[in-house]
Amino acid sequence: MTEQLPPDVIAQLAALDPEITPQLAQATWALLTPFHEKAGYTAPKIDRDLAYGDDPRHRLDVHTDGDGDDQGAGTGKPVFVFVHGGGFVRGDKHTPGAPQYDLVGAWAVRRGYVGVTMTYRLSPAHVWPAGAQDVAAAVGWLRQNIAAYGGDPDKIVVAGNSAGAVHVASYVAGQGGGDPARIAGAALLSGIYQIHQPAPGEPEHVYYGADPDPAASSLRGLLETTVPLLFSVAERDPARFQREAAGVVSAWLGRHGTVPDLVWVEGHNHMSTIASLTVDEPALGTPLARFIDRHTRTKETAR
Amino acid sequence: MTEQLPPDVIAQLAALDPEITPQLAQATWALLTPFHEKAGYTAPKIDRDLAYGDDPRHRLDVHTDGDGDDQGAGTGKPVFVFVHGGGFVRGDKHTPGAPQYDLVGAWAVRRGYVGVTMTYRLSPAHVWPAGAQDVAAAVGWLRQNIAAYGGDPDKIVVAGNSAGAVHVASYVAGQGGGDPARIAGAALLSGIYQIHQPAPGEPEHVYYGADPDPAASSLRGLLETTVPLLFSVAERDPARFQREAAGVVSAWLGRHGTVPDLVWVEGHNHMSTIASLTVDEPALGTPLARFIDRHTRTKETAR
Repeated sequence: MTEQLPPDVIAQLAALDPEITPQLAQATWALLTPFHEKAGYTAPKIDRDLAYGDDPRHRLDVHTDGDGDDQGAGTGKPVFVFVHGGGFVRGDKHTPGAPQYDLVGAWAVRRGYVGVTMTYRLSPAHVWPAGAQDVAAAVGWLRQNIAAYGGDPDKIVVAGNSAGAVHVASYVAGQGGGDPARIAGAALLSGIYQIHQPAPGEPEHVYYGADPDPAASSLRGLLETTVPLLFSVAERDPARFQREAAGVVSAWLGRHGTVPDLVWVEGHNHMSTIASLTVDEPALGTPLARFIDRHTRTKETAR
Repeated sequence: MTEQLPPDVIAQLAALDPEITPQLAQATWALLTPFHEKAGYTAPKIDRDLAYGDDPRHRLDVHTDGDGDDQGAGTGKPVFVFVHGGGFVRGDKHTPGAPQYDLVGAWAVRRGYVGVTMTYRLSPAHVWPAGAQDVAAAVGWLRQNIAAYGGDPDKIVVAGNSAGAVHVASYVAGQGGGDPARIAGAALLSGIYQIHQPAPGEPEHVYYGADPDPAASSLRGLLETTVPLLFSVAERDPARFQREAAGVVSAWLGRHGTVPDLVWVEGHNHMSTIASLTVDEPALGTPLARFIDRHTRTKETAR
């Protein structure tokens, strides 16, 4: 559990241009994939492409240790759900032959959870709040079905990265329906929570439209929810995400008088934050697991 | 290195009234001391009460593994200096028979550093910037003398908690003289960085006076320094410290366009943050050690 990337690899990551480009993705995964291959990035058992809805993108993979006992509520394992990024228009839960994002399922299983990686409908064919609706549908499916994989339907923690964090935040804020107050926690990794008129080139344009609904921002809902929240920002996240994280801190202070649970992911960039799981535990994995454990392993989950 | 407090102890800590009172100190240490006694809170060798100046409070303890080799610059261990809190008017580096603050030295040695715990002149007899001057004097002494204890004078990281963080911040901002730009890093744990007209009962009154010098705030200096900085705020820090941490985030974003390295110390209070070292590593110890290692163990220390 204490794996850590060598300092020279962190230094190489930190030297990359932080702007979110195909080059950044390629360079990041080129640096990290050897470590994932060495550590192993697949859980003992992966049940793939389970349908949580009618769309071909309504699919999820369940990662387990292979024991597969039906535990039921109150006795099962925490369930860690991961919603990938990709600028609203791309991305998948699984790239065959590569660690993204089976590594997240493997990390969850190593930590004693059931791991779930899911995909969702994409823009431009689908627009706000389709992503939140898909998270809600997946959580609803898991609540009905995850006990068969050893998971506890009352201990679901949902995490999203980048556009995935936008969708999870939107779901927590109630924009996607379902019953978000029943999840045990949400981890919002490098997300966007305040939706303005998009500036040229901002990726949310395609999802929110040129004239976003004022109700589309999730921030107010995040400030009011009873769901425990963890936020993260990477040291090398682009400026937009830095502003979003600082904005959450300010708004949280105003609403609650406290600083929110914010993980500053040391040495990492927008792509490598989630890739740090398993191969660089102290960056994100340690505080994330602590958050999950706190809100699923005891009865005292009050914040 | 992976010790973690039981969840029920964290829950008991979190249930304490966060206001800084003798009761909070007593209750916190009562909860944590058994864990420190079990884990051990003294380094193999402690050289006590070394004088770094003329005042009886100009004393420091050096904690080592007992090897004691004179390593010299470039080959010695990182040096971790801890400046205690106590509302400017009390506190000590060492309470005989209790873990505060030998535990910090023990943690440092376990992490491979030389540990230093220091004390400083107190109010009301001494006022701003006496604390910063004392930190500067101690660092100057260490630069001359720590090689004899196996420490590298060019790898000094200075941490302060509460009033100690105020003094370290003030030193980093140049208010105490010396050559703060030469230290390898500073960790500011639950500090105050913006000095206003004190409200009744605010402890800094006694140190800064009723009409503080406008130059006394360290925030501007912190924004401009080249010294790597880590900030922390405890989940259960009182409102004043929450505001200070959020204020640093806002100001840092404005100056640098990024979020600073901020550790949200999960489950802990103003007293237990530093007590978490050794007995609850993931809360503060893991990110703090990562910060120290990053800025002392490689030549690439650029932020």
